[in-house]
Amino acid sequence: MTEPLRTPEPARVRTPAEEARTLVAAHASGLLATLTSDGDPWGSLVAYGTLPDGAPVLHVSTLAEHGRNLRRDARASLVVAEAAGGEDPLDTGRVTLAGRAEVPAGAEAAAARAAFLAAAESARHYVDFGDFTLYVLRVERVRWVGGYGRMDSVTPDDYRAAEPDPVAGSAASAVQHMNADHADALLAMAAGPAGFTDATAAVCRRADRYGLDLWVTTPRGSAPARVGFAEPCARPDGLRAATVELTRRSRAMLA
Amino acid sequence: MTEPLRTPEPARVRTPAEEARTLVAAHASGLLATLTSDGDPWGSLVAYGTLPDGAPVLHVSTLAEHGRNLRRDARASLVVAEAAGGEDPLDTGRVTLAGRAEVPAGAEAAAARAAFLAAAESARHYVDFGDFTLYVLRVERVRWVGGYGRMDSVTPDDYRAAEPDPVAGSAASAVQHMNADHADALLAMAAGPAGFTDATAAVCRRADRYGLDLWVTTPRGSAPARVGFAEPCARPDGLRAATVELTRRSRAMLA
Repeated sequence: MTEPLRTPEPARVRTPAEEARTLVAAHASGLLATLTSDGDPWGSLVAYGTLPDGAPVLHVSTLAEHGRNLRRDARASLVVAEAAGGEDPLDTGRVTLAGRAEVPAGAEAAAARAAFLAAAESARHYVDFGDFTLYVLRVERVRWVGGYGRMDSVTPDDYRAAEPDPVAGSAASAVQHMNADHADALLAMAAGPAGFTDATAAVCRRADRYGLDLWVTTPRGSAPARVGFAEPCARPDGLRAATVELTRRSRAMLA
Repeated sequence: MTEPLRTPEPARVRTPAEEARTLVAAHASGLLATLTSDGDPWGSLVAYGTLPDGAPVLHVSTLAEHGRNLRRDARASLVVAEAAGGEDPLDTGRVTLAGRAEVPAGAEAAAARAAFLAAAESARHYVDFGDFTLYVLRVERVRWVGGYGRMDSVTPDDYRAAEPDPVAGSAASAVQHMNADHADALLAMAAGPAGFTDATAAVCRRADRYGLDLWVTTPRGSAPARVGFAEPCARPDGLRAATVELTRRSRAMLA
């Protein structure tokens, strides 16, 4: 492994709980595991919404096997996965939320209905049909996998308390833009805060509210690096200002 | 619903068993539902290969929960889903295969190992590690959903006997090409074999070995239509010749 030549500046990363919340918030469908009448595991595709504490809201029909399963046995597990991008289908982020599906009551029922419709807009045509039931999955176990070697279990309390990354929706296009138009800025980050003083090139692989993941090339070989923003992005459009600040700071270190 | 003005020519479609086999053959990862030590359903992402009879081959580590689960209880279910394309996450194809995971022996073990590596090439680095076990999922139940209103159960025998669609890998680009460059041919298919003699436009929505799904516009409204090839495509590159023949036949009907 190629190491930096100077100690890199500390750079915060998302916690596993934040990773899990971000994945769940970024998607609207997942795979549900329920139990058949024989106690066999049954997998199916479901749409879901998300309550403010990260609990998924399901909306299933008893005309479907998973709907009949949940009515009989509340135990369920929901997997939310990023679309596999590269050639390796397992080098991708996913999270399993396991717990019990409960029918919400009172104000929570209205909130759950609204959360489901916000995520699955076309369900407005059948959301109140009699064969459908709205469930809230009470999360008792959380297992996050970010790809090879990045994985952790998360306590239900940490999951509930964590905030989804507000810049998740714009990160992919920001990465594309940095790589297309700002190779010089990425190189300054690699040579400055990341400590690869002999870097000859750097590409951005991921962006999040706390910073950027880089892949750095040096005459000695290449390596991953992390560079952090001065302040976490607080808003969905925060990446631009944070990246400008990080670029300015990196160039100042090299001046 | 807008109806054709003349009886459409019969047009074969894939059977539910063929749909299921095609989905499984076209992908290399899915969602596995297994049972925890408490008998709870547990969902996780897995890579899989496929044996010639459509049985999925899994390769799981006992360092992972699903690997420990399968060692304890062989019951499992695998969901393979198309990537959600449109705005509705449930209007997409998926199939659930349920059964028992068995450790293959003898010649089948070698075939299973080869099938898994063919699908998950990067697993060559760890395929023979001691914590990993190769399983064949013996398919006992098959449930296919093609989107809203297209769904069916499939017997395990029909699933095993069906052939994956050989043109599945080129269908999306063929559809794009037809819509971009051959609007006149699609219009001839709509006005000819599909029976919409007053069609003013047609777009192709799907292509498979047996024919094309169209969306036809007429002054009376629009409607879906199906047009069939003279012969099913037998090879992965068969769509071009079949579409040329269908275009010629459609134009002859209108001449």
